[in-house]
Amino acid sequence: MSAPSQITLPSPADFHVHVRQGAMSELVTPHVAQGGIRTAYVMPNLVPPLTKTDAVLAYKKDLERIAPNTEFLMTLYLHPEVTPDEIRKAAKAGISGVKSYPRGVTTNSSSGIEDYGVYYPVFKAMEEEGLVLNLHGEVPSDDEKVRTQLDPPDAQNISILNAEKHFLEHLRKLAADFPKLRIVLEHVTTSEAVDCVKSLPANVAATITAHHLWLTIDTVAPQPHHFCKPLAKEPKDRKALQDAIKSGNPKFFLGSDSAPHPSASKAPSISAEGELHSCAAGCYTSPYLVPLVATLLESFGALDNLAGYVSEHGRAFYKVPAKAGDELKLRRPATAVKVPARLDGAEGIEVVPFWAGKELGWEIVN
Amino acid sequence: MSAPSQITLPSPADFHVHVRQGAMSELVTPHVAQGGIRTAYVMPNLVPPLTKTDAVLAYKKDLERIAPNTEFLMTLYLHPEVTPDEIRKAAKAGISGVKSYPRGVTTNSSSGIEDYGVYYPVFKAMEEEGLVLNLHGEVPSDDEKVRTQLDPPDAQNISILNAEKHFLEHLRKLAADFPKLRIVLEHVTTSEAVDCVKSLPANVAATITAHHLWLTIDTVAPQPHHFCKPLAKEPKDRKALQDAIKSGNPKFFLGSDSAPHPSASKAPSISAEGELHSCAAGCYTSPYLVPLVATLLESFGALDNLAGYVSEHGRAFYKVPAKAGDELKLRRPATAVKVPARLDGAEGIEVVPFWAGKELGWEIVN
Repeated sequence: MSAPSQITLPSPADFHVHVRQGAMSELVTPHVAQGGIRTAYVMPNLVPPLTKTDAVLAYKKDLERIAPNTEFLMTLYLHPEVTPDEIRKAAKAGISGVKSYPRGVTTNSSSGIEDYGVYYPVFKAMEEEGLVLNLHGEVPSDDEKVRTQLDPPDAQNISILNAEKHFLEHLRKLAADFPKLRIVLEHVTTSEAVDCVKSLPANVAATITAHHLWLTIDTVAPQPHHFCKPLAKEPKDRKALQDAIKSGNPKFFLGSDSAPHPSASKAPSISAEGELHSCAAGCYTSPYLVPLVATLLESFGALDNLAGYVSEHGRAFYKVPAKAGDELKLRRPATAVKVPARLDGAEGIEVVPFWAGKELGWEIVN
Repeated sequence: MSAPSQITLPSPADFHVHVRQGAMSELVTPHVAQGGIRTAYVMPNLVPPLTKTDAVLAYKKDLERIAPNTEFLMTLYLHPEVTPDEIRKAAKAGISGVKSYPRGVTTNSSSGIEDYGVYYPVFKAMEEEGLVLNLHGEVPSDDEKVRTQLDPPDAQNISILNAEKHFLEHLRKLAADFPKLRIVLEHVTTSEAVDCVKSLPANVAATITAHHLWLTIDTVAPQPHHFCKPLAKEPKDRKALQDAIKSGNPKFFLGSDSAPHPSASKAPSISAEGELHSCAAGCYTSPYLVPLVATLLESFGALDNLAGYVSEHGRAFYKVPAKAGDELKLRRPATAVKVPARLDGAEGIEVVPFWAGKELGWEIVN
């Protein structure tokens, strides 16, 4: 392929995005459209988590007030309050899916699940109603267990390095038990996860973030702004994600997991008792998402796969077709375009975006 | 073993410590004795690195001025300036060893080596003169290579996760080629490294840090104050280090790799060009090292191995016997003793120590 100077994409969609609450939401929700995204699949891990249809609808209304030109697809947070009846209510109200967080593995996941068995009636209702199941595919680490107990009999060496790999058996079982339920393994980060999703039927797909196409453990460990869950892994894993996109396999599409955190929560801090606080997990890519993705895909020779990755594959899986005439045009910048060092909101909010200070190879034609 | 209320240790030694330069050195060098250590094996990665006997002796004199009651064992930095003649000169001057840093893998290692072949005459001289070879046992990551080149033919998936494992072939070759050279694989972090050192003859030993007995990747990734090289790995690796100490094998002994960094260099920062800076690598344990080690060993049932780990094994390997009457006494604190949240030096230096705010199970009897 000769390098094009302009690209036209069918209506881009981001099938995994965090647009938060309050002042942070006011700052970041408009960034979705600014980054070239027309359809945003919104995560429900608010405080408190969105476990009721009415709460989801109220949240959607607020997002539409902030960003009236963005299409928001909404989700419920998998939780004991989400019953089969709630699923039927959600389906009637136009809610698209249900997100499952294993307990404690990421931002606002302390209400997450520990065992899928109890949710089988819920998954059955979702299958019948056509709701999508979105899985944060990591099992909890047993780090704390092996730290505090001497030779615990049930230690399995589970860490944030292999938490995704250990989750795949749960994915395989869910896929086998609910063959008509559409399931998305979110933000895959390992070659094993890519292989697993490929091996499963067409009702199972995966999102791939922009940041996992660039990071590896070497760039994450020394840099809290690169710390995210799942953690970026080895070069071979990043290559597996890149190759999944290059293959054109429609099971793989963009879900940015763009997740803003106040920059203070990305720096180490000390509590009143003198103990260290951990840094928050997440990378923020929304304000320049499609240009970033184009830049990354071009870097590994996958520019031909851009339309599939940012629009066609996800829209086909979710059955949310692009509207006619809703194309996005990209061009090579005439003068250098850099990712800003910070983004400022109300109430003193400051967010340091992913790739701060780096140059983008593409810009949106307005 | 019933839990003792007091422990008497033969003269503790730390066979891997960074005492820096300038105002930082003034702050941290006295901490070595404060932490219960009588003999400190000092790293040469200053700016510029210590590649000449005369520079090492001048540094030693300065350390003795700051902390006159600590015994300092000194090292050269392996570098083209370190010739066989320099080794003979160093041996006459009482220098104990030579430290090898692979290029670019840790603090002030940009002068590090890339190929051991050229140093064989130096190692021969060290073998003859009885100097110890101290190895930072990691090969450079090929992360940058695979990021900037499309499908580089020589990519080997080397990251900070497997950099130590890939180094072991170099260790085995050096041990085979120099059977009378004493070699220390510094700060081992993987079960593979422990197994390798066990399998090699008695001239090969390993240091184990305090922080690697506690950290795993789960506690490192979100916390720059836990970021160190080599990176802490999986629970199974931490267990292998703990088991090496519990086994009483004299090949394994304390080298704290205690490495102070100004706390500002542990926080993410943005350059004038708007690009993110990485956080510095290192954990700082010197001011309470022996009480910390006693607390950790007790947590995994190895208090019986404390004397071997903090004194006997290392002193036997280095042929630096404990002086008679130079014991250190520990007791259980009557009132809670916590690691301070920060340590302040001149010129605005502030260091956040490892385990800040956590309670120690032992204290030194003065």
